[in-house]
Amino acid sequence: MHISICFTPQDYLRQNFRDDHIAVVVDVLRASSSIIAAMANGCRQIVPVATLEDAQTRRRDYADALLAGERQAFPIPGFNLGNSPFEYSRTVVADKTIIMTTTNGTVALKAAAEAVNVYIGAFVNAAALCSKLAETKHDLVLLCAGTQGRFSLEDALCTGLIADRLSSNAKLSDTALAARAMYNDFCCGDFVKRIMESSHAAYLSKSGFADDVAFCLKTDIFEIVPEFSDGVITA
Amino acid sequence: MHISICFTPQDYLRQNFRDDHIAVVVDVLRASSSIIAAMANGCRQIVPVATLEDAQTRRRDYADALLAGERQAFPIPGFNLGNSPFEYSRTVVADKTIIMTTTNGTVALKAAAEAVNVYIGAFVNAAALCSKLAETKHDLVLLCAGTQGRFSLEDALCTGLIADRLSSNAKLSDTALAARAMYNDFCCGDFVKRIMESSHAAYLSKSGFADDVAFCLKTDIFEIVPEFSDGVITA
Repeated sequence: MHISICFTPQDYLRQNFRDDHIAVVVDVLRASSSIIAAMANGCRQIVPVATLEDAQTRRRDYADALLAGERQAFPIPGFNLGNSPFEYSRTVVADKTIIMTTTNGTVALKAAAEAVNVYIGAFVNAAALCSKLAETKHDLVLLCAGTQGRFSLEDALCTGLIADRLSSNAKLSDTALAARAMYNDFCCGDFVKRIMESSHAAYLSKSGFADDVAFCLKTDIFEIVPEFSDGVITA
Repeated sequence: MHISICFTPQDYLRQNFRDDHIAVVVDVLRASSSIIAAMANGCRQIVPVATLEDAQTRRRDYADALLAGERQAFPIPGFNLGNSPFEYSRTVVADKTIIMTTTNGTVALKAAAEAVNVYIGAFVNAAALCSKLAETKHDLVLLCAGTQGRFSLEDALCTGLIADRLSSNAKLSDTALAARAMYNDFCCGDFVKRIMESSHAAYLSKSGFADDVAFCLKTDIFEIVPEFSDGVITA
């Protein structure tokens, strides 16, 4: 298996990967983590969309769907859910369809849509994800959602963890060697405190979402690996 | 001082930095290292150009200039010099003008041309570069040349070293935090051996340039910090 990492969706699109790879979309803060939490709590399916208008339009297809998402990290007026994983409790999401629009995660999912499989990864499901990927014969592309087209430290670190755990049976690209190295260095210190220096974690923390950040940095707490296929995310 | 790192010239161009920053172009294997070696050996000036045709055209302006460069790492037929730092000895380059075309370094230099100052950095002049940069009031953008628009491990590690050395007086971007972390992790092991796993170092080594790679990974052996200004590199 060959493991590549793309630090932004633009990097992924520019590289024209052949379609016969598996893609993992990583948006640690917070779309991936919230999607995994929702699926672990019995959500039926999540429909990712790019814009607020798309969200309203798609609700016509799913009359009882919940609308979810954020803009500049904050909940969208009139929507049922924001982007905090704590909102996606069993009481709220069990058996529900959720139509979700997020700034970066949706862009990354759409970019990866042609891959053989598109999985959703984060720290919270890293072990389950690695178990699923360890058996594959396909090459693997780990795609960081980033922040508005730019590198995000927390996404890169999460792909570094995944690359590290799979590296005994894989050839790593330069980006994968780099992400693994940065993850290993961060592990030497106070992981959460060091990530708080990064721009998006600092922004979320300052905006009142420090508990979300701490939750999203927990490792291996969910067994669920959501998959994106035909425009819909299921468990 | 704020330190940002761009892992490719495309990242740099996409971010639309304000012009009031200092840029450092890093192409460890091998353009930056060869340019620094040439300047340390008394080269008068280097004129970077994009294409072979540009090189021939510019020679009309500099009748006694040497032509230098590479394609797929190999010397260009009819040119005086390839891209190995060992070729740029005092006997060959002292007081000479060199017209140089390289695959990645030239692209990065052209991208950064609007910055207040554009310096050439590599492992071989890292200490001298950091001394020069430590006093500046400007923000700093470290620009990795990469490989054909893609991330190169050795360039990122070199920017990580520079960010690490300047970090006591600087605010680091996410990319700078990441590069510093990967550099610190690589330093824990056999640095040269680990870099040999990267794609460009492996390719050069397989192509007969292993000595060049080892040379380009030496740290702090030259006191020279070349600067690119008005289309010309001088010491």
